[in-house]
Amino acid sequence: MSSPSVRRVLLAGGTHGNEQVGVWLAKTWLARPDLVRRESFETQVLLANPRAVQAGVRYVDQDLNRSFSAPSGDPRAPYEAQRAQEILARFGPSGSEPADLVIDLHTTTANMGLSLILTNRDPFNLRMAQWLSEREPRLKVYLWIDATLPKSALSGQTTRGATIEVGPTPNNVLRADLCVATEQLVQLCLDFVEEFNGGAFESSAPRELEVFEHLESCDYPRDAAGAVVAMVHPELQDADYTALEPGEPIFLTRDGETLVYGGGGTVYPVFVNEAAYYEKGIAFSLARRELLWV
Amino acid sequence: MSSPSVRRVLLAGGTHGNEQVGVWLAKTWLARPDLVRRESFETQVLLANPRAVQAGVRYVDQDLNRSFSAPSGDPRAPYEAQRAQEILARFGPSGSEPADLVIDLHTTTANMGLSLILTNRDPFNLRMAQWLSEREPRLKVYLWIDATLPKSALSGQTTRGATIEVGPTPNNVLRADLCVATEQLVQLCLDFVEEFNGGAFESSAPRELEVFEHLESCDYPRDAAGAVVAMVHPELQDADYTALEPGEPIFLTRDGETLVYGGGGTVYPVFVNEAAYYEKGIAFSLARRELLWV
Repeated sequence: MSSPSVRRVLLAGGTHGNEQVGVWLAKTWLARPDLVRRESFETQVLLANPRAVQAGVRYVDQDLNRSFSAPSGDPRAPYEAQRAQEILARFGPSGSEPADLVIDLHTTTANMGLSLILTNRDPFNLRMAQWLSEREPRLKVYLWIDATLPKSALSGQTTRGATIEVGPTPNNVLRADLCVATEQLVQLCLDFVEEFNGGAFESSAPRELEVFEHLESCDYPRDAAGAVVAMVHPELQDADYTALEPGEPIFLTRDGETLVYGGGGTVYPVFVNEAAYYEKGIAFSLARRELLWV
Repeated sequence: MSSPSVRRVLLAGGTHGNEQVGVWLAKTWLARPDLVRRESFETQVLLANPRAVQAGVRYVDQDLNRSFSAPSGDPRAPYEAQRAQEILARFGPSGSEPADLVIDLHTTTANMGLSLILTNRDPFNLRMAQWLSEREPRLKVYLWIDATLPKSALSGQTTRGATIEVGPTPNNVLRADLCVATEQLVQLCLDFVEEFNGGAFESSAPRELEVFEHLESCDYPRDAAGAVVAMVHPELQDADYTALEPGEPIFLTRDGETLVYGGGGTVYPVFVNEAAYYEKGIAFSLARRELLWV
């Protein structure tokens, strides 16, 4: 895999202010930068949305992780649009200390375990995912490639970037098990960059990587006023990354009726019953499983 | 057990606006009162905090379930103080349609399973708990008896009353499994009242009931500014109702140090790492296990 080498790695937490694992780790590393230091590159640490962290909410005005496509310096703009502008001015490709790689830390209420989300098929990202998977067998790799996400998300501001997404956890709860697992995964990312900068992958043979590639997102059944009228079915709840076949249950209506998946083949649900996605019109997303050589 | 019989049962949901099981069930029963109808008494249904439900938050101004000791009709008072006044004016002991029994539906981010919380030792309440436990073996009974809670909580406005508390679930997520379990427990409560009104318990022999009686609540370690500086230890996380012995881990500090329980004997933690209790200064509560004849 070709150069250039990585000069700066940005570790971001608190992009969503109620996702406490990233908040905790960012605060820890801001106080103790030695914990994430390496020889061959600089590690930058960012508490991305401090106002939302202070308030214990996902965002103040709008989702920061969907705000990078329209950053704004206008003081009348939504807070997160201004914050995106500030972050880009420092860490963005044209910023004062441009990051070469962004690792953004998130949690989810869904049973996503330890997930690495990539928004492109950049060889560096895929190889990092493969390297991590060998060392953390619980890791799942989710390729969420669509037209808008890379531009609007923090980890998409550099070609090399990934989101670490761990769950299930309630918002505004700090689970130590997920905190420890996330910290270990970040350390592995930093180790990978160190190896990469040392030339370890310049002539290495391709290796196999299992990925789950995003297909579509599915909304809850709603009434004419937009109110949700069915729950995620108990058999689908917590079944992230588990094969879903046509005819299997997906929703349970208020009247007790079971609704089934009507697609044409095997799919893999992700982000099942994520609290923050009710407002986005997403009950779950569907992915297909693929084996890549990277 | 002596009379008087129960003429009205109030089923309340949405006392906390982000606890979706109660919100869902209250809305269901308001639309379909036949689902909770019985012969010998009237069933009332209340969506307790509609503004908080609308906003998807626990409360708008202050915790409604701590507002009944100072209800207020003053339009300048906190919203929940006014709402408590409205609820009491209708369903309170001196209200227009006084309830004889209140069942208030809650969820928790803690691993409390199916819990019934009682705030007094009234014989009716204990007998109901015993009757439910025989029919729902997963049920745990938590006696949370302190000086202030019965007066400030909705279910304490009548001597006969209980809170159903189910978890773990994130806030603003509707889990179908917990929704179904709560609905079954409420149906059992209504069946019990029907039996009670029919005289089934007037001369019945006492039966054994396992209860967990509240001892004290424990805060997180904090710094001088009040910031939490340790996480609930992974071994205590999810260990609600599991024996905790002196010397066993309770916290993991930012520096990786394990703090242990320093008490004098076996206790049983409850409400471990409940999201809403960070602001109340409660990392977990401790209870003692007792066997009662009721």
